[in-house]
Amino acid sequence: MAAPLRVGVIGAGRIGVLHARNLAGRIPGVRLEAVSDVVAASAEKCAAELGVATATTDHRRILERKDIDAVVICSSTDTHSRMIGEAAEAGKHIFCEKPIDFDLGRIDDALAKVERAGVKLQVGFNRRFDPSFRRVHDLVRSGSVGTPHLLRITSRDPSPPPIAYVKVSGGIFLDMTIHDFDMARYLSGLEVVELYAAGGVLIDPEIGKAGDLDTAVVTLRFENGAIGTIDNSRKSVFGYDQRVEVFGSGGMAEAGNAFPNTVIVSGDRSVARDLPLNFFLERYMESYLREMEAFVACVRDGGEPPVGGRDGRVPVVMGKAARLSAEQNRPVKLSEIKA
Amino acid sequence: MAAPLRVGVIGAGRIGVLHARNLAGRIPGVRLEAVSDVVAASAEKCAAELGVATATTDHRRILERKDIDAVVICSSTDTHSRMIGEAAEAGKHIFCEKPIDFDLGRIDDALAKVERAGVKLQVGFNRRFDPSFRRVHDLVRSGSVGTPHLLRITSRDPSPPPIAYVKVSGGIFLDMTIHDFDMARYLSGLEVVELYAAGGVLIDPEIGKAGDLDTAVVTLRFENGAIGTIDNSRKSVFGYDQRVEVFGSGGMAEAGNAFPNTVIVSGDRSVARDLPLNFFLERYMESYLREMEAFVACVRDGGEPPVGGRDGRVPVVMGKAARLSAEQNRPVKLSEIKA
Amino acid sequence: MAAPLRVGVIGAGRIGVLHARNLAGRIPGVRLEAVSDVVAASAEKCAAELGVATATTDHRRILERKDIDAVVICSSTDTHSRMIGEAAEAGKHIFCEKPIDFDLGRIDDALAKVERAGVKLQVGFNRRFDPSFRRVHDLVRSGSVGTPHLLRITSRDPSPPPIAYVKVSGGIFLDMTIHDFDMARYLSGLEVVELYAAGGVLIDPEIGKAGDLDTAVVTLRFENGAIGTIDNSRKSVFGYDQRVEVFGSGGMAEAGNAFPNTVIVSGDRSVARDLPLNFFLERYMESYLREMEAFVACVRDGGEPPVGGRDGRVPVVMGKAARLSAEQNRPVKLSEIKA
Amino acid sequence: MAAPLRVGVIGAGRIGVLHARNLAGRIPGVRLEAVSDVVAASAEKCAAELGVATATTDHRRILERKDIDAVVICSSTDTHSRMIGEAAEAGKHIFCEKPIDFDLGRIDDALAKVERAGVKLQVGFNRRFDPSFRRVHDLVRSGSVGTPHLLRITSRDPSPPPIAYVKVSGGIFLDMTIHDFDMARYLSGLEVVELYAAGGVLIDPEIGKAGDLDTAVVTLRFENGAIGTIDNSRKSVFGYDQRVEVFGSGGMAEAGNAFPNTVIVSGDRSVARDLPLNFFLERYMESYLREMEAFVACVRDGGEPPVGGRDGRVPVVMGKAARLSAEQNRPVKLSEIKA
Repeated sequence: MAAPLRVGVIGAGRIGVLHARNLAGRIPGVRLEAVSDVVAASAEKCAAELGVATATTDHRRILERKDIDAVVICSSTDTHSRMIGEAAEAGKHIFCEKPIDFDLGRIDDALAKVERAGVKLQVGFNRRFDPSFRRVHDLVRSGSVGTPHLLRITSRDPSPPPIAYVKVSGGIFLDMTIHDFDMARYLSGLEVVELYAAGGVLIDPEIGKAGDLDTAVVTLRFENGAIGTIDNSRKSVFGYDQRVEVFGSGGMAEAGNAFPNTVIVSGDRSVARDLPLNFFLERYMESYLREMEAFVACVRDGGEPPVGGRDGRVPVVMGKAARLSAEQNRPVKLSEIKA
Repeated sequence: MAAPLRVGVIGAGRIGVLHARNLAGRIPGVRLEAVSDVVAASAEKCAAELGVATATTDHRRILERKDIDAVVICSSTDTHSRMIGEAAEAGKHIFCEKPIDFDLGRIDDALAKVERAGVKLQVGFNRRFDPSFRRVHDLVRSGSVGTPHLLRITSRDPSPPPIAYVKVSGGIFLDMTIHDFDMARYLSGLEVVELYAAGGVLIDPEIGKAGDLDTAVVTLRFENGAIGTIDNSRKSVFGYDQRVEVFGSGGMAEAGNAFPNTVIVSGDRSVARDLPLNFFLERYMESYLREMEAFVACVRDGGEPPVGGRDGRVPVVMGKAARLSAEQNRPVKLSEIKA
Repeated sequence: MAAPLRVGVIGAGRIGVLHARNLAGRIPGVRLEAVSDVVAASAEKCAAELGVATATTDHRRILERKDIDAVVICSSTDTHSRMIGEAAEAGKHIFCEKPIDFDLGRIDDALAKVERAGVKLQVGFNRRFDPSFRRVHDLVRSGSVGTPHLLRITSRDPSPPPIAYVKVSGGIFLDMTIHDFDMARYLSGLEVVELYAAGGVLIDPEIGKAGDLDTAVVTLRFENGAIGTIDNSRKSVFGYDQRVEVFGSGGMAEAGNAFPNTVIVSGDRSVARDLPLNFFLERYMESYLREMEAFVACVRDGGEPPVGGRDGRVPVVMGKAARLSAEQNRPVKLSEIKA
Repeated sequence: MAAPLRVGVIGAGRIGVLHARNLAGRIPGVRLEAVSDVVAASAEKCAAELGVATATTDHRRILERKDIDAVVICSSTDTHSRMIGEAAEAGKHIFCEKPIDFDLGRIDDALAKVERAGVKLQVGFNRRFDPSFRRVHDLVRSGSVGTPHLLRITSRDPSPPPIAYVKVSGGIFLDMTIHDFDMARYLSGLEVVELYAAGGVLIDPEIGKAGDLDTAVVTLRFENGAIGTIDNSRKSVFGYDQRVEVFGSGGMAEAGNAFPNTVIVSGDRSVARDLPLNFFLERYMESYLREMEAFVACVRDGGEPPVGGRDGRVPVVMGKAARLSAEQNRPVKLSEIKA
């Protein structure tokens, strides 16, 4: 058996702990060597739970270690591009949570450093690894729906984030729709050339006061002329509403919501089932595990990361285009977004 | 265009009126000539509604008419076998509601008269013409599920009939399960050789006092060794529960319940749809039309009726076997039922 | 019993014959008195089939008759507005197939004549009477989904019309999307103030040469800020794809496709069901009957027609706005459309 | 935090390894201390994978250790009852795979030793922990379906076991239906008093030569008069077919099959989805984890095991009754089964 891949996790918040648990207990051939967090107690708690020797408040302690092969960056968004650069210069392979940055210049700097260092970089668009979305992607790719003509992504959250978060989130298009922009590219295998975003504040006026939208529809124009729509809401009372549909010259592939069980109850008023899963960690539990397995596999066995640097950059361009489109109420070409 | 088929309806109760309406307005190439009912007002009302010239209290007025080709017998069950005989002797083709009779001797007499007269007889097992059950039948026949191994019929009524009706109904097996016995033969294309019936009074003690059961499960053994189950209840609070399933060496075909619409409502407590159709005339509306079209077609164009005399007789044998089985709590061979 | 409502049908093409059959055989309290068509054989064949006394090539023969209460206009689109005017002046109540006209001035003239005459006018947006779409409408109206935030209409035809028809159809937005514009207003109970149409020619280049589009997505902005999308395709290989969804502050109501049966087949490669209904007369059969019942009821019993003159006019405005939007690739306010 | 529960696993075959992995990596508060297997390599491989210190071929090395609190018995069926006795006498809490034994005398001896020792015993009927079956159970218990009247369990395997296994399996009723007997008691909350089993050899004549059946339907009579059916097949070409339904005075609860994704593909021939999960370790993965969590919880926190000794014994009685019923083709009361 080959020596295990040695990994450090930077950032032990909710998503960092999730990745750490997967690395420590569910992926063969990996050893979680170190955990860092700017809050000492967070790093220590995570390390203790998982039997990890090193807990630190300084991610550079991880980058310095020669025996560590790869890092998983889960720190706050504003640190991503810098840490990618540092990790690349330290020769580590990198898994980084999305988004890389809101600034295209900083993204480009980070990607340049990755390229110079010759390390691998995978961006955390985990939804690509959801078994249902992946199945739709595979069906499109294999030609089962023919040439894509219409694509539809429904992406509605159970409830809005706190207003404090809204203010620093980059806005709905860069915080929430960014996942759907990635999904549109992933499912269709096509690039978007133009989009039109219509948004509103229909759920909570506080979101509007914070300068953001809570409801949005984005029309996408793909390079082959196909048309897509993304519809977003920050509040779906029935739970996480996450569906996709690709309609083409040969048919249609749809993925529906995920439910906690298959039970149907017929009573004297209706035929009903329980609500869809409500929490993103439950809804996407499997996708988080699969994306990390894929990262480990590409580092160990070679091959390109399934979600590379360009895949991290383009959705940021789309998010900026959507924001401009909504502000000016006009279609915006992606080529208009320069930096 | 050929001359229209001229038809008389005997018995203008609920089901007679339904057949009369289909004959008068929805089946091309037919002329409804006469309606009889022992209650004059019923015959007259039906005739007036549909613009039929003749209304009578005496069905023999219909049988005497040389210009009438066929009769549809919808009078009370105890008159069926006698009227079949009379109609056959008058040279009329016959559609008769199920059951022909509860007495096998009288059934055999009636069928002998039909055979001597060379007229066609179709028995009113309408459910064979339901588009979903028919599709399952066709799939089995075409080999899509391979050799049948297991068959399942769910047949539950929205609510029990009045106790007065229960007393003269012949019992649950001859009144209700008889449809399912026919369906078992129709779907499988196989004969049943033995059955075991387990029943109970779980819904209404008055049904038990009337000597009947309100809940029953019948296990069927088919000639090829396949095994079937029928489960019946007189009261399904969520509406008509009518489903079938055939499982075989090559797969499975299932037909589900019929709903009034396709709407799904997701609220903050459940994902729900409206109840299935609740009334047999709605649930089986199309099947009544299609069975009469088939009768008209076989009389006009030749060919065997799709539900013949033997198809009317065997389910009565099965009903008697089920009653005996439930009384004696043992499996009963159909060959034990002599008369 | 009241005297029957006496009706004449103008235009005995496919849709005229359908209405004539419903009026003659399936709606109580109506007498179909006359049928006209510019092609004598068409009028005569329809009249013969249904036992109607009068067949004529001149619709004025119908308008002159004092004993006729109402007319059903199913002649070619370019005659609708003129015949509405003539029928109104003759004091007849009017059911008219959609669209009233492609010219807003002629629509307004016709509606003015209807108003002066004090007759009732119902426009043939039959899909409002589909039991599933109606159920969604009722749920929205009753508050079951709260305030509408997002509305989605999927409307895809099994196959494109002949190119000869495309050339005179008024274009996809006035020929096909017009139904969806009506549905958007019906389901939401709201008016649209602005829309953005993105279209393409992805199915058949001949459609493009004829100056039309075959694939389109229209984003609707409603008066309350809610956002809707309509997506259209002229070719859905799996059959008629007609679904709607209303998402609001309190939940979601969806209507799915209509299938010919409920059968599910599980084989060794997939779990499958038959395709949705493929032909609009089958898919919407019930809706055509229900809209005519509603027309008859409002004429006989009083009350406003459920789809009035304004409901006929607004979707034409929306169709013109969509055409302009697609041509200029910009959002268009409905208030921009003057005539 | 409390000291971890220290556990040893006896038997490192497929199911033993599964439990060992769950104990080692997915259940907090547990330490897997030792693994035994009669095949040294199996014990060693499992211990190495999971970082367990002790691997042995002699389970008594585990029972002797004072620091081990509980054992998980996954050795071959013929050793279960003996090892339960030994473990009880050693004061260990016990989780034992089903069945305890095929001999009621040996079961009773083992249960008596458990009782004398005052240790906890949980039997491995894992399907009770499937989230869908559990939800049906909870709905029945909470009264959501009223009084149970009819219960149905569909339990069909993807493919028959090897003939060599069939010969030592105890027969279909003790090997396969035993899970369904447990499920019938679990879902209904009721005891069965009588049953009737109809079986056949429809799939593979070799199974018949080995003295077993491959297809069976068992009718259950519950203590309250309710009636249940279990239908079994050793070969379902479309995958694991595992569904349940409870129909009662107040409604119905059903659990359907489990699928690997939610994707639906509409093509030009059908609307289809992928087959249900095909392998029991995938289908019931979550249930294995949940049952072990429940065992750990009852040992650590007190309380009765959710599946106790009596729950292990009754299904064996039912299996013997079913075998007798099929042999003699008659209903058999459970009270007839003495040893």
